[in-house]
Amino acid sequence: MQRFFLEIAYDGTAYHGWQVQENAVSVQQKLNEALHKILRCPIETIGAGRTDTGVHAKQLFVHLDVPTDKIPDKSRFLHSLNALLPYDIAVYRIIPVDQDAHARFDATERAYEYHVHFRKDPFKIHKSWQLRDLPDIVLMNEAATFLIGTQDFGCFSKSHTQVYTNICSITRAYWQETNEGLVFHITANRFLRNMVRAIVGTLLDIGLKKKAPETIRDIINSKDRAKAGTSVPAHGLYLTKVVYPYIDTAF
Amino acid sequence: MQRFFLEIAYDGTAYHGWQVQENAVSVQQKLNEALHKILRCPIETIGAGRTDTGVHAKQLFVHLDVPTDKIPDKSRFLHSLNALLPYDIAVYRIIPVDQDAHARFDATERAYEYHVHFRKDPFKIHKSWQLRDLPDIVLMNEAATFLIGTQDFGCFSKSHTQVYTNICSITRAYWQETNEGLVFHITANRFLRNMVRAIVGTLLDIGLKKKAPETIRDIINSKDRAKAGTSVPAHGLYLTKVVYPYIDTAF
Repeated sequence: MQRFFLEIAYDGTAYHGWQVQENAVSVQQKLNEALHKILRCPIETIGAGRTDTGVHAKQLFVHLDVPTDKIPDKSRFLHSLNALLPYDIAVYRIIPVDQDAHARFDATERAYEYHVHFRKDPFKIHKSWQLRDLPDIVLMNEAATFLIGTQDFGCFSKSHTQVYTNICSITRAYWQETNEGLVFHITANRFLRNMVRAIVGTLLDIGLKKKAPETIRDIINSKDRAKAGTSVPAHGLYLTKVVYPYIDTAF
Repeated sequence: MQRFFLEIAYDGTAYHGWQVQENAVSVQQKLNEALHKILRCPIETIGAGRTDTGVHAKQLFVHLDVPTDKIPDKSRFLHSLNALLPYDIAVYRIIPVDQDAHARFDATERAYEYHVHFRKDPFKIHKSWQLRDLPDIVLMNEAATFLIGTQDFGCFSKSHTQVYTNICSITRAYWQETNEGLVFHITANRFLRNMVRAIVGTLLDIGLKKKAPETIRDIINSKDRAKAGTSVPAHGLYLTKVVYPYIDTAF
């Protein structure tokens, strides 16, 4: 068997997230079906992480094991795979890796973007969240600096999830103004479930002056989900980057 | 009666173009229905021009006559209109104009963009045309210079259309490289039916070295639609600007 990584991207609008589940269509299911058709054997795939219903990915890596010599021509394989997959899922690269490489456990860094806009825009439906009021980006970026570092982020995690620890190391967190709205960028070694959407909701509360920037420090220290802001909708969220020590992710 | 201009934008994917027609859903029909509901009387609208099925508009102006004092609060009117319209049609401004202002006859300039990309992209479906081969942008821009000026562009017009003249004045025509692909920009006082899509198809033939750049001069002189390239698909095409002497269109 030969292990490969696939670099994929998808518009999450039509899917119940990445992960295979019963009674709902997922991106992973579509990928597995297409791989099965091309390779003519059932293929198991492991993704870098889950994404929720409606969340998009500009870059996600997946690993899979394929019988040796089953993919003699990688470029032809990619072409067939993309032709079989629906228009909203693309596979950009197939990369041979060591037998013990792992798409989930070896990822050292993940980055997300959250997009908001203000004016009704026919071209942004399902791709950005429309806000009525303009938040203060300076206040939000002041608050975002309190996120940087290795901390317990339980306050931004969906309650009742079973993870061994809520500690994450956030290395970048800031809002950027664009021609069309605002984009929040955040990078960490790992994220808890629902974490980015709860952080964005909290920062928007601060930008709209419902909370002071420093309160984010108290919210983090409280470890209490009820103290943080409401989660923002899924359709503005993009997984944009997953980093591995052995893969050029900025290809 | 008071005459108004509306500035609108739409994603054309779901519509059989701008113009009302029988047995097909158009943007104009949706707009008329929403106006009827708000103003509680049938409203006639005249657009700056037609767009074909699947073509998008980032800016189109429409005029309409409304009984005096029917719109006491323009900002509230815009809010209600946008709430009633589907997500893929937006109205940005309502501008009172002179009683003889005309959205079609008074437009002095129209601009279009055509978007192409090369890598399968889940976020570009219905919004840009995916090409397999990279055309030579230098050759295409060399050819595009022959388009500039006041000429008979019958060679790029859908045959059997009844217009009084095929003469148009093109003032800008060039390809631009972006992070995500190529965008063709073209501005003229008026366009013939199907003209931009036929021009783009012809320029792409030149970029892919099926024709030499100078041949575009012969094609124009021939006035023969059969000599030009195939029309490219509608979904890469955007009407981006309509200019009037009395309206700030770059608002």
